[in-house]
Amino acid sequence: MPGSEYNYVTPPLSTNSVVEDESWLWFQIKAEAHRDAESEPVLASYLYSTILCHSSLYRSLSFHLANKLCSSTLVSTLLYDIFLNSFSTDPTLRSATIADLRATRARDPACVSYSHCLLNYKGFLACQAHRVCHKLWTQSRQPLALALHSRIADVFAIDIHPGAKIGKGVLFDHATGVVVGETVVIGNNVSILHNVTLGGTGKVRGNRHPKIGDGVLIGAGATILGNVKIGEGAKIGAGSVVLKDVPPRSTAVGNPARLIGGRDQPSKHEDVPGESMNHTSFISEWSDYII
Amino acid sequence: MPGSEYNYVTPPLSTNSVVEDESWLWFQIKAEAHRDAESEPVLASYLYSTILCHSSLYRSLSFHLANKLCSSTLVSTLLYDIFLNSFSTDPTLRSATIADLRATRARDPACVSYSHCLLNYKGFLACQAHRVCHKLWTQSRQPLALALHSRIADVFAIDIHPGAKIGKGVLFDHATGVVVGETVVIGNNVSILHNVTLGGTGKVRGNRHPKIGDGVLIGAGATILGNVKIGEGAKIGAGSVVLKDVPPRSTAVGNPARLIGGRDQPSKHEDVPGESMNHTSFISEWSDYII
Amino acid sequence: MPGSEYNYVTPPLSTNSVVEDESWLWFQIKAEAHRDAESEPVLASYLYSTILCHSSLYRSLSFHLANKLCSSTLVSTLLYDIFLNSFSTDPTLRSATIADLRATRARDPACVSYSHCLLNYKGFLACQAHRVCHKLWTQSRQPLALALHSRIADVFAIDIHPGAKIGKGVLFDHATGVVVGETVVIGNNVSILHNVTLGGTGKVRGNRHPKIGDGVLIGAGATILGNVKIGEGAKIGAGSVVLKDVPPRSTAVGNPARLIGGRDQPSKHEDVPGESMNHTSFISEWSDYII
Amino acid sequence: MPGSEYNYVTPPLSTNSVVEDESWLWFQIKAEAHRDAESEPVLASYLYSTILCHSSLYRSLSFHLANKLCSSTLVSTLLYDIFLNSFSTDPTLRSATIADLRATRARDPACVSYSHCLLNYKGFLACQAHRVCHKLWTQSRQPLALALHSRIADVFAIDIHPGAKIGKGVLFDHATGVVVGETVVIGNNVSILHNVTLGGTGKVRGNRHPKIGDGVLIGAGATILGNVKIGEGAKIGAGSVVLKDVPPRSTAVGNPARLIGGRDQPSKHEDVPGESMNHTSFISEWSDYII
Amino acid sequence: MPGSEYNYVTPPLSTNSVVEDESWLWFQIKAEAHRDAESEPVLASYLYSTILCHSSLYRSLSFHLANKLCSSTLVSTLLYDIFLNSFSTDPTLRSATIADLRATRARDPACVSYSHCLLNYKGFLACQAHRVCHKLWTQSRQPLALALHSRIADVFAIDIHPGAKIGKGVLFDHATGVVVGETVVIGNNVSILHNVTLGGTGKVRGNRHPKIGDGVLIGAGATILGNVKIGEGAKIGAGSVVLKDVPPRSTAVGNPARLIGGRDQPSKHEDVPGESMNHTSFISEWSDYII
Amino acid sequence: MPGSEYNYVTPPLSTNSVVEDESWLWFQIKAEAHRDAESEPVLASYLYSTILCHSSLYRSLSFHLANKLCSSTLVSTLLYDIFLNSFSTDPTLRSATIADLRATRARDPACVSYSHCLLNYKGFLACQAHRVCHKLWTQSRQPLALALHSRIADVFAIDIHPGAKIGKGVLFDHATGVVVGETVVIGNNVSILHNVTLGGTGKVRGNRHPKIGDGVLIGAGATILGNVKIGEGAKIGAGSVVLKDVPPRSTAVGNPARLIGGRDQPSKHEDVPGESMNHTSFISEWSDYII
Repeated sequence: MPGSEYNYVTPPLSTNSVVEDESWLWFQIKAEAHRDAESEPVLASYLYSTILCHSSLYRSLSFHLANKLCSSTLVSTLLYDIFLNSFSTDPTLRSATIADLRATRARDPACVSYSHCLLNYKGFLACQAHRVCHKLWTQSRQPLALALHSRIADVFAIDIHPGAKIGKGVLFDHATGVVVGETVVIGNNVSILHNVTLGGTGKVRGNRHPKIGDGVLIGAGATILGNVKIGEGAKIGAGSVVLKDVPPRSTAVGNPARLIGGRDQPSKHEDVPGESMNHTSFISEWSDYII
Repeated sequence: MPGSEYNYVTPPLSTNSVVEDESWLWFQIKAEAHRDAESEPVLASYLYSTILCHSSLYRSLSFHLANKLCSSTLVSTLLYDIFLNSFSTDPTLRSATIADLRATRARDPACVSYSHCLLNYKGFLACQAHRVCHKLWTQSRQPLALALHSRIADVFAIDIHPGAKIGKGVLFDHATGVVVGETVVIGNNVSILHNVTLGGTGKVRGNRHPKIGDGVLIGAGATILGNVKIGEGAKIGAGSVVLKDVPPRSTAVGNPARLIGGRDQPSKHEDVPGESMNHTSFISEWSDYII
Repeated sequence: MPGSEYNYVTPPLSTNSVVEDESWLWFQIKAEAHRDAESEPVLASYLYSTILCHSSLYRSLSFHLANKLCSSTLVSTLLYDIFLNSFSTDPTLRSATIADLRATRARDPACVSYSHCLLNYKGFLACQAHRVCHKLWTQSRQPLALALHSRIADVFAIDIHPGAKIGKGVLFDHATGVVVGETVVIGNNVSILHNVTLGGTGKVRGNRHPKIGDGVLIGAGATILGNVKIGEGAKIGAGSVVLKDVPPRSTAVGNPARLIGGRDQPSKHEDVPGESMNHTSFISEWSDYII
Repeated sequence: MPGSEYNYVTPPLSTNSVVEDESWLWFQIKAEAHRDAESEPVLASYLYSTILCHSSLYRSLSFHLANKLCSSTLVSTLLYDIFLNSFSTDPTLRSATIADLRATRARDPACVSYSHCLLNYKGFLACQAHRVCHKLWTQSRQPLALALHSRIADVFAIDIHPGAKIGKGVLFDHATGVVVGETVVIGNNVSILHNVTLGGTGKVRGNRHPKIGDGVLIGAGATILGNVKIGEGAKIGAGSVVLKDVPPRSTAVGNPARLIGGRDQPSKHEDVPGESMNHTSFISEWSDYII
Repeated sequence: MPGSEYNYVTPPLSTNSVVEDESWLWFQIKAEAHRDAESEPVLASYLYSTILCHSSLYRSLSFHLANKLCSSTLVSTLLYDIFLNSFSTDPTLRSATIADLRATRARDPACVSYSHCLLNYKGFLACQAHRVCHKLWTQSRQPLALALHSRIADVFAIDIHPGAKIGKGVLFDHATGVVVGETVVIGNNVSILHNVTLGGTGKVRGNRHPKIGDGVLIGAGATILGNVKIGEGAKIGAGSVVLKDVPPRSTAVGNPARLIGGRDQPSKHEDVPGESMNHTSFISEWSDYII
Repeated sequence: MPGSEYNYVTPPLSTNSVVEDESWLWFQIKAEAHRDAESEPVLASYLYSTILCHSSLYRSLSFHLANKLCSSTLVSTLLYDIFLNSFSTDPTLRSATIADLRATRARDPACVSYSHCLLNYKGFLACQAHRVCHKLWTQSRQPLALALHSRIADVFAIDIHPGAKIGKGVLFDHATGVVVGETVVIGNNVSILHNVTLGGTGKVRGNRHPKIGDGVLIGAGATILGNVKIGEGAKIGAGSVVLKDVPPRSTAVGNPARLIGGRDQPSKHEDVPGESMNHTSFISEWSDYII
């Protein structure tokens, strides 16, 4: 579907369904937290302050982010105001949060519950904080966006430029070391492992970073540089270094990266790797792999 | 030695010798800290609070970890209780700490003293905190284990799943960016550099992560994915991407990884690279290396 | 220029010009911060405490570093004293800070202002803190240097050994995951991306780490191991693994790294990649790259 | 005016005028803070975070109280929510705040500005926090009210039981050591100095504390015990111990307290001492005073 | 009972009954906290961290005191160790805590539950912290005792010298401003209101402070100076200044204090005012009181 | 000596002798702290951070005050700058500190060492912080002075208006609850107990507070109101309420206060009560005292 693969804007929301979705998910999260608080009194204080004393998912998330990202010169109450204000006034932010929670729960076998993701996944938390940064950026509030970005980079070791556009249902798994540049566009239902770089090519200004199509999977430590297109449903192997476009539903591996099946007739897979999370199915086809 | 190479359980301890070992090491650490406090009054406050005011190594370590890992919603006194309780009741934890301290001191030429390791090595500290996480995990206290794991990942940028089993005498050097999955097993006397991934292969649940044999050395930025076996005494070159088993005492390098000497007759080394830390001796044999 | 390429010592300063330079830059930074404080009251508190209430650049920097690096066992006022004392007594430190600020502003298109760099660039901040660590190291104050180094590694996820010598006008971009070993020497006007390792080769003590010439550019995730020389103006591609010397003004790429143009007649570029930040111009020459 | 003198409930508010009053005062406070921030950069950070970055008086006050009253087990963001929620939903609370600000500014010659009172007067701040406590108390949220009360008592050394009813335009000057019991009622336009006790008479439960009429002035260190009435416009001398009713517009002094002019024909004054703050005009009439 | 009235040492404890008493009380406290946590989720985090996650009363108390009394230079984990160590090894301390809890609950009509006292009564908390201070003092650990004493005086505005001996079942009500000198002895079942001074007479060293008999009640703001004896069951009126001995079961009021009934034939009461808390029954007998 | 009794300005200092005095005292304090750190490792961290790592008394004091008075909106590093700057540039401040330290040590039998006073005496610390406030006040930096004053009042429960002039060698003993008004002048070698009020008389502006002569002793809880003169060497009994001038070397007691010996022929004492601290020698002469 040409033209749509980098389209991270979702179709107009029926506000109603978002609200229902939010309610259902929030109900699950509170039930999980209640169960955990009962079984583990040592953790109950944490669960009450972060989840159980709040009246909605976005208030819980704002509270949690403010307490994670505060510092001695940026107090938590100030950050709390910023997050609350952004989430409460922008249903798009809230629906992206919900989609990310669902994506993490569905794709990561280590994610045992929604509350686990909400509280403990640094990739999820950094991504939600980034969404607020990006909103501030588009509102011409660059200095605030950059200050917040700096806190995210310090606290989570995840560096997503406020200008980057990120779709919904995105999973940043493990996430430490991720770098995403200013003019990056990431589609919907993308999965990105830790230490992935979506970087620029140097001093050039303007549009200079990768565009990642819907449903792409990018393996740990992969480096993609420059204004290249990673076609929808493509898969980038762990540790790959990619400097050119990758066609849709094909697989690029290695440093320098090669297409499985060859440049001219690359193999195409049917599944959506960003959702199926199939990291290694290309092994048998990777002819150079000789262990 | 088939069957034993991933055996991270050490033979039953003579409790006595652990106690003696602990005493000796603790005496050294206090002597080092005393010397440093005298030569550097600016640091004395730190050395007294973290080491010199404590009556044992495990109390000092519990104090230090609690103060490193606390946050505004997980107060230090609560974490202190958790660490104290785990270390004081489980001599296996304490003997693993001792072995890790010795391993760091012996293998890393930059490690100038035991107290240096105890106070400053994020890899060492994250590993000890993980050992407590893992204990909680095996006691079916998952929510607490995961909350603690999240703090380790935030504070140290080291992400070891609470389910991972780690042997004794393990060195995580530099350690930033390390990711270790849920069903990983790491043997004894292993050395792992920073940015190493021992990851899964996607959405598959169950046993899905690497098994690392005794004495293995894994270079910086190496990525090992899937339920593969890295044989005892093997060496994985920096930046390698490994998706298949690696035989004992052989060396895998490159992306995709190749065995030095070839798949059929791989070269075998005599030393234990996890202990000798010999990172680069394979260079002359690496035929493709053409600078 | 043999013999000079790793020379990170700058020519004797006309103290006067440093003072003037400092004044000019400090004036710019305050003007930027004033402008931002007026346009964004939410951030004004942060801008006044970190920049606008201070009387000089080095006091602002000392304040900012102390508040970033403090912990519950190393209080900010103590760290503030250490930084103030170092910067106020050593004009070389201050002129290096100025050169780094200028380098960041000039080379990184995402760097929108000097104050942005001063407040938000973890690579810049870690590097300035390292310069103080290194000074302490050379004054035989190892325990303090190592404690401070540990805080930098925890807070910024950047691990520069206090012994490493770093020239002026150095840019650590994004910087998460960078590891720089004890006997590393980095020249002037070098640019280093995130996740770069300048590491040792194992247990060997003594001079065991890379020497990076003036004007070198090292791409994201590159790993350089051992006491090898990266010639002035050389370029190391992202994700490369380098274990041998790289000649001046040549380009090494891949894992294992190869020289563009071949070992015997490597291509030479005219620009200074550490300043031009040209990451990807080697693509067309990289014959193996087959996407 | 029998029956009305302890009536701390104000006539129904024209919401409009409250809003206007709030706006005018908030405008003044911001103007004062702006002026101070410009003349004193060292304080600007504090003024921006507490006043200038907020959109209304009650948000500024909620922020300030949350940051003053928080502790390691009651985080500021949680308290902020409580204050914001109370002030935003209850215009009576907001109009009492305004009346107290005006009273302090008008009556205390040491109060140089509204912002000075808002930021620095512990009596004012404790009283506003108490008003929220009292609201929680009347909503049957006793445990929360008592926890908040405990923080006020710790932080400000002012102990006002959440059950106490306090009118509008009340000045607690200096305020350290003030104790106000559960069934106390304080009228409008009352002024109370530090170390004043409005206490009970022991173990008796039920209505057991003083009722203070409108316009009363109670001097420093005065102790009033039991369910006694202090008539409107009465004056209680510093250090007095009062255990019986005091008629309106009379003056009680000494330990034990006597009425100026005698029990049967006490002198009556015309002014409202709670507003005129005339502490010592009774001296010439105090016949026993013999210095 | 001459000779016994200042005897604050209780008869040898049947350790068993203390343990039972502790268990019963702890059970009540947890039940109260559970009930409050359920009815007030906003407070649940606080209740879990301070009470519900602990295994015993003394651990809960140690945790709470450590978090209340910590500062940036005396971290909470260090204080926690001190409190835990004292309470766990000294059953006398624990039984005094229990007696004080019971006394507060029984005598103060504003004390709605045991948990309310444990969490919120600064007089109770300061007294328990003092008991630990006193223990350290008697162990010749003066510097530590004085540092802890200083924290109590800062945090609670209650100044009890570490040398002072305090019996069991003592209530410090409201407690702000209380000063108790080094050689004070306070008997059992005493009640002391806020702002009470038990002070010395100047520069004299040695035994120079009041001795307070069992069952005494001292009203708010009373000042007792010098090595005087307040006989068992005596009552000191609010605001009194006492510089001479007061006979058992008599009442002293006023400044200067007089005995109700006269010096030669003072009135004697039958009840134990320290327990009955009858503050004002002397009024009708106080002939000078003339309002 | 008319005209000189409120003269708090000391004769011009031989700067030399101040420096020597400072050195001697600082040497004593460090020796005491060393001794305590050795005997009590639990406290050593505190002693090193507050005293032993500093190079001078005023740096130690600035550090300690900054850490005591900081809050989440006034960070310690900012306060540290203010204190350092004031003390380092004004030898008068430093010599007053020394005189206060000596006075406390000499007059208070509970003061066991200079370091005890420096670290633990809230009256001493509040007074030194006030001296800086007063300096700011006289430099027309009122907003900063008032903000700092507010912190002192919160943290120490001591409320000294920045405008008040305080001589040297002043002891504030226990100090909780002390209130000192804007136009107060306190002479040299004065001793003031806790809960003392030196207050105004209401709404009158201008010179409206007490003037306290050299060598005066004011007992606990005394209240002195209005622009009255307390003659040099006078003594004010505990709990007294004074509203008129008190002649030099006389004693005023009671509420209302009377002169011992009568208004016309008051008894005169020879000693300097502010130094001898003789609180109670007037008892036998106090004819109304009838216990």
